[in-house]
Amino acid sequence: MQVNNIPYRTIWPDPEDNKTIRIIDQRHLPHEFVEEELTCLDDFVIAIKDMHVRGAGLIGATAGFGMYSAISGMEGNMDPAHISHAAEALKRARPTASNLAWAVDRQLAAILDQPVEKWPDIAFITACAIADEDAEYCRRIGEHGKKIIADICAKKNGEPVNILTHCNAGWLAFVDYGSATAPIYAAHAAGVPVHVWVDETRPWLQGANLTAWELAEEKVPHTLIADNTGGHLMQHGLVDLVIVGTDRTTYTGDVANKIGTYLKALAARDNGVPFYVALPSSTFDWELRDGVQEIPIEKRSGKEITQISGKTEEGAIGSIRIAPENTDTANYGFDVTPARLVTGLITERGITAAEEQAILTMFPEKKSSI
Amino acid sequence: MQVNNIPYRTIWPDPEDNKTIRIIDQRHLPHEFVEEELTCLDDFVIAIKDMHVRGAGLIGATAGFGMYSAISGMEGNMDPAHISHAAEALKRARPTASNLAWAVDRQLAAILDQPVEKWPDIAFITACAIADEDAEYCRRIGEHGKKIIADICAKKNGEPVNILTHCNAGWLAFVDYGSATAPIYAAHAAGVPVHVWVDETRPWLQGANLTAWELAEEKVPHTLIADNTGGHLMQHGLVDLVIVGTDRTTYTGDVANKIGTYLKALAARDNGVPFYVALPSSTFDWELRDGVQEIPIEKRSGKEITQISGKTEEGAIGSIRIAPENTDTANYGFDVTPARLVTGLITERGITAAEEQAILTMFPEKKSSI
Repeated sequence: MQVNNIPYRTIWPDPEDNKTIRIIDQRHLPHEFVEEELTCLDDFVIAIKDMHVRGAGLIGATAGFGMYSAISGMEGNMDPAHISHAAEALKRARPTASNLAWAVDRQLAAILDQPVEKWPDIAFITACAIADEDAEYCRRIGEHGKKIIADICAKKNGEPVNILTHCNAGWLAFVDYGSATAPIYAAHAAGVPVHVWVDETRPWLQGANLTAWELAEEKVPHTLIADNTGGHLMQHGLVDLVIVGTDRTTYTGDVANKIGTYLKALAARDNGVPFYVALPSSTFDWELRDGVQEIPIEKRSGKEITQISGKTEEGAIGSIRIAPENTDTANYGFDVTPARLVTGLITERGITAAEEQAILTMFPEKKSSI
Repeated sequence: MQVNNIPYRTIWPDPEDNKTIRIIDQRHLPHEFVEEELTCLDDFVIAIKDMHVRGAGLIGATAGFGMYSAISGMEGNMDPAHISHAAEALKRARPTASNLAWAVDRQLAAILDQPVEKWPDIAFITACAIADEDAEYCRRIGEHGKKIIADICAKKNGEPVNILTHCNAGWLAFVDYGSATAPIYAAHAAGVPVHVWVDETRPWLQGANLTAWELAEEKVPHTLIADNTGGHLMQHGLVDLVIVGTDRTTYTGDVANKIGTYLKALAARDNGVPFYVALPSSTFDWELRDGVQEIPIEKRSGKEITQISGKTEEGAIGSIRIAPENTDTANYGFDVTPARLVTGLITERGITAAEEQAILTMFPEKKSSI
């Protein structure tokens, strides 16, 4: 998508050498646009763990390139023990992110039966394929989801469609287009008028920092709100549709997403507002049946609650403390929205009910793995 | 309640002269504890307008003492025109705060039929009565609500009762005890083990700034959380009870409270968690039937969303911007939780269902005003 009217992806191999991988260091957004070079395994682990990159698709793509970087960094000295060390280090960087393990395992499957001298080339091709597929799947999600928005617009006689989203499931969370934002960008590009309510998304403020920024760069009308606001808006008919992303979705349709998503799903149900979840199928977990009970929820540092970063009055990036010193905190990264609250899942293959049989009808090849 | 182990109210006459009125300047909390002397009408108007004091009960008490200050400041020269000027100036300071006008009018009713030489004494007695009644009503709310907590504790075989609260309906919002916090303080004082989940309460962060501070001073165990967290906690059995305050409650039981309260009520209902609202009966609106449709919701400055204040790394109070420049915002101060989601109302007279007949049975003298 666009940054200063120039098309970007969130991760790409430097065309000079195809070895250095470049990312947007998203920690500086929206105040500064910073590119970063990743050149060794540690760079990738840190970039994932410390959230220079974040979001399911982008974490997967970064892990794919991370495996490539680990493999190509060994040069003549290919050691399967090093490969599994790299795989483990990457997987541990963000344990809730299923795309991460999926991308690492895809790399392992691609190389392990092949002669070691081919590993770097295979790993590069695989990493690029993971990234390209991610972008293509998001593009298709946009095409399918666009129809939902266009239908609502038609029912509103062409009035703008008000869409609420939580967190950042935008192109910054993937390689391009995003999941939740893909239908919005596709509708906007097709001339369907849209307006987005952007949840700021405490504690990390991905909505205020990232979603508001990328919508502004794409010139999509939007309004930033405190996370507490969505219920009130829905009670007063100011939301036509909720679209969110997901970090992991069970094959029964339970949706793990940024903490607070469940509260918006409850408000949508209470007010008859459709609640859609957009996801590439790589986000499905084909092993878990009960999302609320079985999906592990990452607990993060309490400093993300008590300290907030932003641009100071002097124009620097700084942080402030908003609570008494030494206040106890609990910082859960995600919650799980039960399938019963989800109107539908927008995938690269089309839209399905959030229900086991419907999901398996759309992904029949997965039936055997359940 | 306690500050540094010394009992305080939020407003009190200086015992040296009974003329100077002292308050806690709450703008500095939790980073600094600052007392302020109010000695003339202008001091009171500024303290209310610029939110040195806030919260329904405390605004009323401050207005009561403000009228006393205006009257005693005239000394021998009592002029009814000055009195009505003072009354108007106070009422204009926070036009939506109904306790403010109520306290001013109570002072006017108390003095106007009396000889002018008695006005200062009458106004002092009336101001103290307003403050004492506020504290006494909150104390009674605490006694009634304590039983709910003790019952849950007994069912949990003496394990701590986990209570979630939103915003600050603590003693800082009243003269003493608070509304939502009164049952918590009463239970804690009675040796019933409690633990409080404190919603930080964006955008103004009253939970992080005020509720966390007052619970710490009272040594009540508590944990600060992002507003997005409550649903997840309830799904996992980590919340036994929700208690919130209210800014206005209809006689049908619809509850206007800080934005985001409705989302917590939905989560409580979805997980079978009792959801109580604590209020002195002065908070009832005996004229409105449909809270969602009829209670006016204040829209506030978008800067409260994009700029956050706190303590900088250098130890000063500063603010940071968390969104792209010029982002559109919508800042609704309150939402309305429909009565169907409210388990009960804890008032100074006892606990009632959030339902017209039950409320009028508890307040039969109001039947004629409906």
